Amino acid sequence: MASTSVGPPSRSDMANDSYPPIQPGASLMLALRLQDRPILLIGGGVVASQRLYFLLESGAHITLVSPSPLEPSIAHRISDPSTSSQIKWHERPYLGRTDPIKVSDFDLVMTAIDDNPLSAQVCEMCREERVMVNVADIPPQCDFYFGAQIRQGPLQIMISTGGLGPRASAMIRDIIRKALPENIEESVKGIGSLRSDLRKRAPGVGGERGQQRMDWMKDLCDLWGLEQMTRFNDEETRRFVLDQGWDNGKMVSPTEVKGKVQKVGQFWEQVKQFGHTQLAAGVSGFGAGLAVATVATIYLTRNAAR
Amino acid sequence: MASTSVGPPSRSDMANDSYPPIQPGASLMLALRLQDRPILLIGGGVVASQRLYFLLESGAHITLVSPSPLEPSIAHRISDPSTSSQIKWHERPYLGRTDPIKVSDFDLVMTAIDDNPLSAQVCEMCREERVMVNVADIPPQCDFYFGAQIRQGPLQIMISTGGLGPRASAMIRDIIRKALPENIEESVKGIGSLRSDLRKRAPGVGGERGQQRMDWMKDLCDLWGLEQMTRFNDEETRRFVLDQGWDNGKMVSPTEVKGKVQKVGQFWEQVKQFGHTQLAAGVSGFGAGLAVATVATIYLTRNAAR
Repeated sequence: MASTSVGPPSRSDMANDSYPPIQPGASLMLALRLQDRPILLIGGGVVASQRLYFLLESGAHITLVSPSPLEPSIAHRISDPSTSSQIKWHERPYLGRTDPIKVSDFDLVMTAIDDNPLSAQVCEMCREERVMVNVADIPPQCDFYFGAQIRQGPLQIMISTGGLGPRASAMIRDIIRKALPENIEESVKGIGSLRSDLRKRAPGVGGERGQQRMDWMKDLCDLWGLEQMTRFNDEETRRFVLDQGWDNGKMVSPTEVKGKVQKVGQFWEQVKQFGHTQLAAGVSGFGAGLAVATVATIYLTRNAAR
Repeated sequence: MASTSVGPPSRSDMANDSYPPIQPGASLMLALRLQDRPILLIGGGVVASQRLYFLLESGAHITLVSPSPLEPSIAHRISDPSTSSQIKWHERPYLGRTDPIKVSDFDLVMTAIDDNPLSAQVCEMCREERVMVNVADIPPQCDFYFGAQIRQGPLQIMISTGGLGPRASAMIRDIIRKALPENIEESVKGIGSLRSDLRKRAPGVGGERGQQRMDWMKDLCDLWGLEQMTRFNDEETRRFVLDQGWDNGKMVSPTEVKGKVQKVGQFWEQVKQFGHTQLAAGVSGFGAGLAVATVATIYLTRNAAR
């Protein structure tokens, strides 16, 4: 993996005056917070419905411009009470420059229509107004790309191949999905709750205290591991760890905490993370070993008897 | 994994009138294309250096505002010929509203400074001008978050926990890194080259042809798998597959293609993907089976002899 981007230089890198070379051509990967933000979505087909889904999950306020008929899932989201308030539907084609709906009133603009001249016009308008735009399927008219995604509660993972291979992105997503621990969502929620409690106990942004909080949290995460972090969903456990650990300026290990102790040692934790394929391999190997030794023994004793 | 977001509804979902419920609170995960785009970065410490690294890889033109002394890696990037043209450094503190550098001249603004009142002012200015802003460590002043990242050439993966646990994001990234096939970058590049050749052979955006291209590429990817896709880095192989497959409206399997044939069947491909832990488990199991059978045989024959 010679060209793996190693990320920003570490302290040891800097001490040695060695900096990882910059490999150009990357996207900047971001997680946008769109709660209540205005987004313009032009189109009413399958691709538009996919965009709409992710926009709804982000809490955006979507202005949808498309004539009928709409893709059924879009029609559903417009009429369903749980999502209808997030969508304002203008039942007509978008008119480009003459349209009363102005791209400059939005944070992002997305088109997913089969009208290339209109898409190009929308793209032009957005670039004049400095509004980020995505024209489905036309990379030069995209200021940003979508990718394959995984979401488990607060955990979100995105796989992008820079437009080279959407199917490859989806296949890599499937590999990642299988690799994630089963209760990863509980781990993330647990550590989030602990972090939140710690901020209340030791408030303030940045500075020395902020650094202390970060260092303590990092060391704790490394000590507990993802599996044990699920225990931080329990308020008593969090309080104990903060009282015994943070307040005394030290670490608290998983075995020191009473209550709903998951009696899984380091070894079993790794076994669990290994998953089923390794277990199957081990059992099969064991069976094969038994069989081979038994056959060999029978063969050898027969020969000895002769 | 009950709350895994299943993504936009599939065709079968829609046929059954069942739509996955929207789980609010998500970020919108995007890959931004920032080649030659103007970005404002305020700050000169460790966090600013991390931002700078990713901005440089994205090809952005960075206006950096920070007094001396700069973090050594930042100073290096400013002076190094390979990156100096991408950075314009203003050696002074940012002055907020009175600063001649206007946030509205930029696509994104990032601050990474230990000055909370100034950060808050910059955030305010950006929100007035509708410029997306990220204030390091203060989530309410962030229109977007960064996450843990993996990059291998054109493949980029981002892990976000919505600010709940940066250390957890990094730990999950390490899990993913181990799960990725070793030559995944070659797979992505290969499929990208094939896709590009196909577009030249059958140009045009959208419509029926666009759909045909997408369908053919998807079926081909599913048939070949990530490992075999590495062969598409060879021009002859691509030409053969397009001539025999696309031009005849059919599929071409990996075994039908001559040249640098990797004689790995489906089974061995899976074995390779399994990795070392499963092999170790199988061998250990085999050895344990041998041992148990041997000991049992000795014990039984001794008992039989008495």
